[in-house]
Amino acid sequence: MAEKTDAQVMIGGKTYTLSGYESEEYLHKVADYLNSKIDELNADAEFGKLPVDMRHLLLNLNIADDYFKAVARNEELQGIIDKKENDLYDIKHELVAAQMKLQSAEKKKKSSPK
Amino acid sequence: MAEKTDAQVMIGGKTYTLSGYESEEYLHKVADYLNSKIDELNADAEFGKLPVDMRHLLLNLNIADDYFKAVARNEELQGIIDKKENDLYDIKHELVAAQMKLQSAEKKKKSSPK
Repeated sequence: MAEKTDAQVMIGGKTYTLSGYESEEYLHKVADYLNSKIDELNADAEFGKLPVDMRHLLLNLNIADDYFKAVARNEELQGIIDKKENDLYDIKHELVAAQMKLQSAEKKKKSSPK
Repeated sequence: MAEKTDAQVMIGGKTYTLSGYESEEYLHKVADYLNSKIDELNADAEFGKLPVDMRHLLLNLNIADDYFKAVARNEELQGIIDKKENDLYDIKHELVAAQMKLQSAEKKKKSSPK
């Protein structure tokens, strides 16, 4: 089993010790990401005037929105893969057909009287 | 410009009116997702004993973790697309080579004395 990693990170101006099976690098990456989302919200002066639960909710919604966008992108990429899979299938058939014609043409050439 | 949508959603037991340019269906999907993440955390009795800021942090971390997993999956899928792109490139070359050989074989056949 992987060892647990502890990482001291600062999120939203507070220091936390994150503990997990992920690498310390990953924990810092997640902390950086959360801070960037918090900064985005704080850039709007109105945000600071909202009740604390609304502020937490908006942060959650914005992260969830990134998640759903990434999931939608996954679906798009999967669609591209399926399309390329079909293209490969078609072109392999074309190649096999061309190779068979070629074989047959070469066979005829060999068997034709000189 | 798209019209703003309002949707009444319940998140973590509280009712909120979400407003955005996304569809009402999407806002409900995000709310359902957040509730599922909150339920996951609440399933651990220890979670309720944590200070409120730690509970918010854990929720944020878990959503961010889903986001990063989806992003990693995007990179994986992009790698698969690149691989298929290369395969297509190679097989197209093979096809063109076979077609040229075939053309040349057919040309010879036609030009050979009967």
